[in-house]
Amino acid sequence: MEIYYKISRALQNVRNLRPLVHHITNYVTVNDCANITLAIGASPVMADDINEVRDMVILSDSLVINIGTLNSRTVESMIEAGKKANEFNIPVVLDPVGVGATPYRTKIAKEIMSKIKIAVVRGNLSEIKALYGINAQTKGVDSSENFSTGENVSSSIKSFARDFANSFHTVVAITGKTDIITDGETLYSVKNGHEMLSRITGTGCMCTSLIGSYLGAGSNDLYGALAGVATMGIAGEIAYNRLDPYEGSGSLKSKIMDAIYHLSEEEILNWGKIDEE
Amino acid sequence: MEIYYKISRALQNVRNLRPLVHHITNYVTVNDCANITLAIGASPVMADDINEVRDMVILSDSLVINIGTLNSRTVESMIEAGKKANEFNIPVVLDPVGVGATPYRTKIAKEIMSKIKIAVVRGNLSEIKALYGINAQTKGVDSSENFSTGENVSSSIKSFARDFANSFHTVVAITGKTDIITDGETLYSVKNGHEMLSRITGTGCMCTSLIGSYLGAGSNDLYGALAGVATMGIAGEIAYNRLDPYEGSGSLKSKIMDAIYHLSEEEILNWGKIDEE
Amino acid sequence: MEIYYKISRALQNVRNLRPLVHHITNYVTVNDCANITLAIGASPVMADDINEVRDMVILSDSLVINIGTLNSRTVESMIEAGKKANEFNIPVVLDPVGVGATPYRTKIAKEIMSKIKIAVVRGNLSEIKALYGINAQTKGVDSSENFSTGENVSSSIKSFARDFANSFHTVVAITGKTDIITDGETLYSVKNGHEMLSRITGTGCMCTSLIGSYLGAGSNDLYGALAGVATMGIAGEIAYNRLDPYEGSGSLKSKIMDAIYHLSEEEILNWGKIDEE
Repeated sequence: MEIYYKISRALQNVRNLRPLVHHITNYVTVNDCANITLAIGASPVMADDINEVRDMVILSDSLVINIGTLNSRTVESMIEAGKKANEFNIPVVLDPVGVGATPYRTKIAKEIMSKIKIAVVRGNLSEIKALYGINAQTKGVDSSENFSTGENVSSSIKSFARDFANSFHTVVAITGKTDIITDGETLYSVKNGHEMLSRITGTGCMCTSLIGSYLGAGSNDLYGALAGVATMGIAGEIAYNRLDPYEGSGSLKSKIMDAIYHLSEEEILNWGKIDEE
Repeated sequence: MEIYYKISRALQNVRNLRPLVHHITNYVTVNDCANITLAIGASPVMADDINEVRDMVILSDSLVINIGTLNSRTVESMIEAGKKANEFNIPVVLDPVGVGATPYRTKIAKEIMSKIKIAVVRGNLSEIKALYGINAQTKGVDSSENFSTGENVSSSIKSFARDFANSFHTVVAITGKTDIITDGETLYSVKNGHEMLSRITGTGCMCTSLIGSYLGAGSNDLYGALAGVATMGIAGEIAYNRLDPYEGSGSLKSKIMDAIYHLSEEEILNWGKIDEE
Repeated sequence: MEIYYKISRALQNVRNLRPLVHHITNYVTVNDCANITLAIGASPVMADDINEVRDMVILSDSLVINIGTLNSRTVESMIEAGKKANEFNIPVVLDPVGVGATPYRTKIAKEIMSKIKIAVVRGNLSEIKALYGINAQTKGVDSSENFSTGENVSSSIKSFARDFANSFHTVVAITGKTDIITDGETLYSVKNGHEMLSRITGTGCMCTSLIGSYLGAGSNDLYGALAGVATMGIAGEIAYNRLDPYEGSGSLKSKIMDAIYHLSEEEILNWGKIDEE
């Protein structure tokens, strides 16, 4: 049970400290990212112009880089903000949305990984594979790959996750039906969430913003990544269970925000399905 | 009744095939477009950088071009992606948002029409007129023109729609109080929807994304356009009928997503108001 | 009670006249701004390209400039659109989001203030102070500063607000726990709203869009600013009071739109908490 109390304390820290989470992110889910950051109790700031990202990031407690709708203007800002964050020991979380789908996206994600020290990378299996250099076809950004890890994650995926973490000296969170979070040594599996989450855009991006919120409030990289993934999954499950028969993806999105807003220690204890190995 | 079964089968195809719908679209309603594409069962990808749109579109099953917040950077991407889509026989849907409001917008929309083979154009009456070269003043993008076609569409509007389709060798969907869809020969009128839909931003854009979803799942241009328009209207009407007295445009939006998510053959049969001539 | 009837009449004017409100705004809350503009009965248009903003603004009844995610491309458009608006006597509302957070943001906001005649500026206390040249640290854009004005606004803040209005020849609306609206002489305090509004992104931006809607429908600068602030606060309070125990920030956002959509004279009279001095 220790891990659930740890997550609960991390959540309390977010609410007490209200960390400022600087996002350089895509225009598709940016509103959802801002709202989930506020729902959990942190404070978002979205600024992407090269003339201010260095000044903004040093006011912030963490930096989230999300390449969902990358373009040459924002890529430069991502790299400059990331370098400045590294200089000031501000943790950087990377969401390599859609990596593997196009050569440009893969090239940029790798460039970010090589130029910036990333605390946590969160993606689905095909994205993380593409980032590693394994030829995995990413189909869009709201992909069925979200659930491709399957109910029981094979040992080869776990060993790949550890390799990735060790090679890049980062924590990696591979989200799917079962989520895998590892720093290369300790590995957590999280079986929260629901397949219906893949029918709303931005659940991955929102999860990344939650990780940014935890890191900004002082969680270490491994526990922050775990806490972000677990709270997203638990809130998603609670929200799903509150749907009336007529309600669908529109209501689910609103109820996820509500669930994050009210998330309690009791709910983390009752709903959490985390294994450590 | 045959047409309702046809739409129902097209919907089933979307859910089975989960087509990838590449959008180059505006930043106002992009989140809604992604969510409605997911709600109906397709998969959206929003990518607009010139360095990747050609690679992204050839992975996709259809391309939606929406000029809602066009700018010189994205216009170039729209045209390059559209050309590539044509080359690979990937259907392209155009939403000429706000055409007629400014000379720039009209010029760009016409440029797109002249350089790219468009499968379906969807707009309100003033936008479609402006695209044809008729001087119609577009007032904003969420315009009362949405309902300007009136309850009973005059024969002159129908004959204009057929002329448009024949001149541009495209299917045109003119949405309003009554929607008109024609390939220049067969013409469908759809009397679904509700005036309150015009009090939410993006219902037009979302309709266009639905058309993109149907075309991506193999519907031909005429039936795909009809299916997109009809499912949007039916879902809007169902959603409206589920509003509590206190609920307004915020709840309506959420309930539209819910209605699309659950849309059934029975609902299409019960709610559909389609005439063919 | 006169002031409440005045606001009610202003609201009726918005619904009757459906003013077109041109926004050049950020990509975080742009969808919310469009939806609240529609909810109150006005019509939004979001266009930011330098090739069309001058043509778009002269079709419009007011212009909202919001620097939430400013960049060099849009800043140029803001200034050109603002100048054209001034030339045509179209009122301009400025939301100096995050001013004081970075030197770039402060520089641009001051540049806008110096080049364009602004009818109303709306911001939180730290933003308005930064715009005045007082060194106030802005923490992010969804800041706790939203409520920093406190329950009872000190006379020094009121006198600062009047100084600001007089120095810049503008109406200023400082929103917080208590909102202050002044043209340098008459000063209104509004005690509507709820702290929970600060847990949704964009409540400030949406308030600014409401002010733009009122000015577009012919309200003078002072009453338009007051009406926008008061209706946002009243709708927020009504929405908060309709939350079920499980509902949080996701539901609140949807209920705010609903409340604005249905806002009645009776509600303005019953809920309004406005003092004049």
